Amino acid sequence: MSGRLLVIGTGPGNPDQTTPQALAAAAQATDFFGYGPYLDRIALSDGQVRHASDNREELARAKAALAMAASGKTVAVVSGGDPGVFAMAAAVCEAIEAGPKEWRSVELDVVPGVTAMLAVAARAGAPLGHDFCAISLSDNLKPWELIERRLVAAASAGFVIALYNPISRARPWQLGKAFESLRTILPATTPVIFGRAAGRPDEQIAVYALSKAHPGKADMATCVIIGSRETRIVEREERAPLVYSPRFAEATR
Amino acid sequence: MSGRLLVIGTGPGNPDQTTPQALAAAAQATDFFGYGPYLDRIALSDGQVRHASDNREELARAKAALAMAASGKTVAVVSGGDPGVFAMAAAVCEAIEAGPKEWRSVELDVVPGVTAMLAVAARAGAPLGHDFCAISLSDNLKPWELIERRLVAAASAGFVIALYNPISRARPWQLGKAFESLRTILPATTPVIFGRAAGRPDEQIAVYALSKAHPGKADMATCVIIGSRETRIVEREERAPLVYSPRFAEATR
Repeated sequence: MSGRLLVIGTGPGNPDQTTPQALAAAAQATDFFGYGPYLDRIALSDGQVRHASDNREELARAKAALAMAASGKTVAVVSGGDPGVFAMAAAVCEAIEAGPKEWRSVELDVVPGVTAMLAVAARAGAPLGHDFCAISLSDNLKPWELIERRLVAAASAGFVIALYNPISRARPWQLGKAFESLRTILPATTPVIFGRAAGRPDEQIAVYALSKAHPGKADMATCVIIGSRETRIVEREERAPLVYSPRFAEATR
Repeated sequence: MSGRLLVIGTGPGNPDQTTPQALAAAAQATDFFGYGPYLDRIALSDGQVRHASDNREELARAKAALAMAASGKTVAVVSGGDPGVFAMAAAVCEAIEAGPKEWRSVELDVVPGVTAMLAVAARAGAPLGHDFCAISLSDNLKPWELIERRLVAAASAGFVIALYNPISRARPWQLGKAFESLRTILPATTPVIFGRAAGRPDEQIAVYALSKAHPGKADMATCVIIGSRETRIVEREERAPLVYSPRFAEATR
């Protein structure tokens, strides 16, 4: 008897940015797995059970949820943002591949959401308006030299770069090192956006030139967007400046 | 007297994937600009005026919307997916930068949405579960050699690649050429996902090995996701295979 696993993206944190599909999926589940603050975004009704776990226990959480779903229940794994972007969907797939055969019979539905970089970009203008990439700066699951190689490759090829997991207490120096590497490739004036809690009451969006971007402006809930050579700032007298990447690009870049 | 411009992302096409924020924003506008099929996603009420235009007239549409907003109205520009990803937000910022000074006084709000690659990824598993990039394959606004250089740089550095605007009647050969370039870098078995109308009743999701990926499987509404060397396929007896990119990566890649 195989049940169902719903991997639900709740969006960047503003309830108005959670899709009806995510709420409808949540209404079907009996058991909810996830990092506490993400679970807080779903109002559980009587009989729905909450299984909160630490942010770093993704694989263990995926296994627990799959085991319960395989027993016949409808189980939800709740992510912030989009579950497919540096979040739970990959951990669930990893667990299915390595796990017992019956986990492959579980009906798996991933419900997409607005991922952090889109919410931050919307508040800044259109920094992701041209080719861009998303990189997790966490070196817990990949070596730092690989991250650095990707940063250099992306900036050299003209991609705007969105950084997820830019900094944490256990990873204090990586963001500064990333800025250092990027300064060897991109102009000093390249716009860098620090976006935190975009679309929420405690939103903080700040724009600095790359030469003045300081890792202390970020924490683990910040999404950092680094422009390309093409990214521009439009100053506005009465309003915050707009940061955008034009839709067109020249061959010489 | 300066009005307001709302650049609204309606998501990938399934109404359940449109955020409440997008609908609330639309309720405030008197005039709606956009490509007809995207405007069709918003039910207009009496007194709300529809200004449909062709898909390729982004800059002219942005200017018309800004001129009307600058006259004091609340105007909506409607995008599919997320307006910041190869859509109207960048065109609006371009128009503001190049336009009359009063356009900078218009209150501009960009409302993010679920962009196509997230909806396609959700239906396939978690192909964007690790570092990835998004590239528009249209060479209308940038030269083909730049696109090819970016494809090669991204694949060589280990990014999963999401292709927007992969093919059209006016651009018939570019996707085939992109696959050709990528075959020189990535293994023949690399999974390629063709995703169309993800989450909608007419959804089509197909997975091919890179060696067998054929541009004829795509049209202009398809999002094509090309895996990295790390991307894996999990076969399931009773269900469609899962395609995912593990959260971890080795230094040697």
